[in-house]
Amino acid sequence: MKATMIYAAGDIRVENIPDATIKNPTDAVVRVVRSCICGSDLWPYGSKPADSAPNTIGHEFLGVVEDIGADVTGLKKGDLVVSPFTWSDNTCDFCAEGLQTSCRHGGSWNAGDVTGCQAEAVRVPQADGTLVKLPVAEDSALLASLLTLSDVYCTGHHCAVSAGVTAGQTVTVIGDGAVGLSAVLAAKQLGAEQIILMGRHRARTDLGRAFGATDIVAERGDEGVQRVRELTGGDGTHAVLECVGLSPAVDTAFDVVRDGGVVSRVGAPQYTEAQAGFGVFLRNITFTGGVAPARNYIEDLMPAILDGTVEPGKVFDSTLALDDIADGYQAMADRKALKVLITD
Amino acid sequence: MKATMIYAAGDIRVENIPDATIKNPTDAVVRVVRSCICGSDLWPYGSKPADSAPNTIGHEFLGVVEDIGADVTGLKKGDLVVSPFTWSDNTCDFCAEGLQTSCRHGGSWNAGDVTGCQAEAVRVPQADGTLVKLPVAEDSALLASLLTLSDVYCTGHHCAVSAGVTAGQTVTVIGDGAVGLSAVLAAKQLGAEQIILMGRHRARTDLGRAFGATDIVAERGDEGVQRVRELTGGDGTHAVLECVGLSPAVDTAFDVVRDGGVVSRVGAPQYTEAQAGFGVFLRNITFTGGVAPARNYIEDLMPAILDGTVEPGKVFDSTLALDDIADGYQAMADRKALKVLITD
Repeated sequence: MKATMIYAAGDIRVENIPDATIKNPTDAVVRVVRSCICGSDLWPYGSKPADSAPNTIGHEFLGVVEDIGADVTGLKKGDLVVSPFTWSDNTCDFCAEGLQTSCRHGGSWNAGDVTGCQAEAVRVPQADGTLVKLPVAEDSALLASLLTLSDVYCTGHHCAVSAGVTAGQTVTVIGDGAVGLSAVLAAKQLGAEQIILMGRHRARTDLGRAFGATDIVAERGDEGVQRVRELTGGDGTHAVLECVGLSPAVDTAFDVVRDGGVVSRVGAPQYTEAQAGFGVFLRNITFTGGVAPARNYIEDLMPAILDGTVEPGKVFDSTLALDDIADGYQAMADRKALKVLITD
Repeated sequence: MKATMIYAAGDIRVENIPDATIKNPTDAVVRVVRSCICGSDLWPYGSKPADSAPNTIGHEFLGVVEDIGADVTGLKKGDLVVSPFTWSDNTCDFCAEGLQTSCRHGGSWNAGDVTGCQAEAVRVPQADGTLVKLPVAEDSALLASLLTLSDVYCTGHHCAVSAGVTAGQTVTVIGDGAVGLSAVLAAKQLGAEQIILMGRHRARTDLGRAFGATDIVAERGDEGVQRVRELTGGDGTHAVLECVGLSPAVDTAFDVVRDGGVVSRVGAPQYTEAQAGFGVFLRNITFTGGVAPARNYIEDLMPAILDGTVEPGKVFDSTLALDDIADGYQAMADRKALKVLITD
């Protein structure tokens, strides 16, 4: 079967690898119908050393169950399913608490013997716990939005939920990438009253407005901080959703959060420490967030997609066939595409 | 009137300063009946430069209202009152949210024209908002415990509340100082099931056991982390209450917290940054806490003191007259006293 391999920075290839097959009785094999490229895939795309071993890539997909292991009871061949970007048994204590990313029997794609999802098919460990059935047909117009349940919409939602966003609050979202825009949409759905989106790419911030942003701040650094302060009577916002992953964005987050407020981050951190000194202490700022347990949110977020209330799939502004996925990586790296959908 | 002055590291003097008087119509003057020395007072006691200007010190007290300004309506002369360690109007939006430390019209003792509380009397700004009446007599045996509402018990409680400690949870408390012991007591009152106290001073950890600690870990560093992990099936605890304020304690906190858990800190930070890298991100650890809005907790915590359910005043293991307060500083700095109560 065909699968996407990353050899080194800038070197993405679609190659034949052994077909996905059942290895453990809790596995399923899913034929991938839609996958996509994640902002986090751009980190290895920008930095993977040329002398490192190639590996598969991709962790977001939906598709059709092609085969199931002997112990899989909740799925059958032909089911259309979406998968969160980590696999989990969904029964251990961490899963029960909604932290499937720390599942005692879980893991990640592209690690060990589990290959990646930018491929024709994929073996899904802990299939009963991991996969969620989609009540639509394989040709549904909702597939793009449903695919965002695999990662990006759930990640934006996790950012907002971790920040404790509730009705009437003020929120700043830092970053106009697909995660940032998803965080805007999530904050809006949670009832935030003022949603300030910090971003400078007009097409993206326009989508941010459509998703619920009330104000756009294109300035960065001190100017950006000053602008958010102006928009909030000098106070900053109750929640700041950091969706970039770089240290300057985190610093900005601390500068625009209201006393007693929360900085929540879901941008994969390209930093090792965050502010925690006396100023932060006196202001009782909370720093939270992390990798999103997408599995925890899929059932909660799906109904509003099915009934058309939200269309998180609008973050996809480009669609390519699997064979052309390398062009998608380059387009996202060049910021010519916001997020690229991959068809079978 | 007599007041405690700090001139430099190790140099505490009781001197005469101008009597406390009403300056603003919202002021009260309180004759101090009990004050005490705070662990945070030991920072300047250990480091204040010899060439800096002397200033008053002390921020914890209870006493009797001697005079009130024209706008004070909720207090009268003769009321016995306890004061939180910051003053606040208790009506602004931050106060309404329970964050009186960020009050729009609040402030601290020993700043501007507001002198310190290790003194015979003190002027209290925003008296209606700041002071809380005590329904006991000036000679009550409960005064020591009621004095802890000024800071130390409320600070321990804030640490536990910020960590979201709830019934049945596992908690690690780092630090066997008066704040750490208060955090143990607070966690116990909030229903924590397992409370691991990390501390190595036997008399203090014994009090920790009396306050509710289920396990004592005397080891520090990697050994201490390993011990906490052993006590928690390898997982660490839901909440970690960091009551030291030093970077190694914060690092230990991250090492003993359970995935998805909370590190809450109330030790005045002698560090500027905290861990926030990929490991913390993957584990969804929250870092929170800060200076305690004691005012927010006084009414909540007082009933259990009045009815004898809790005795947070047990953290006082030494009592001195104001004239002898310098000895109290030295005893606490030498770890010969846990916390020193000062009488009038």
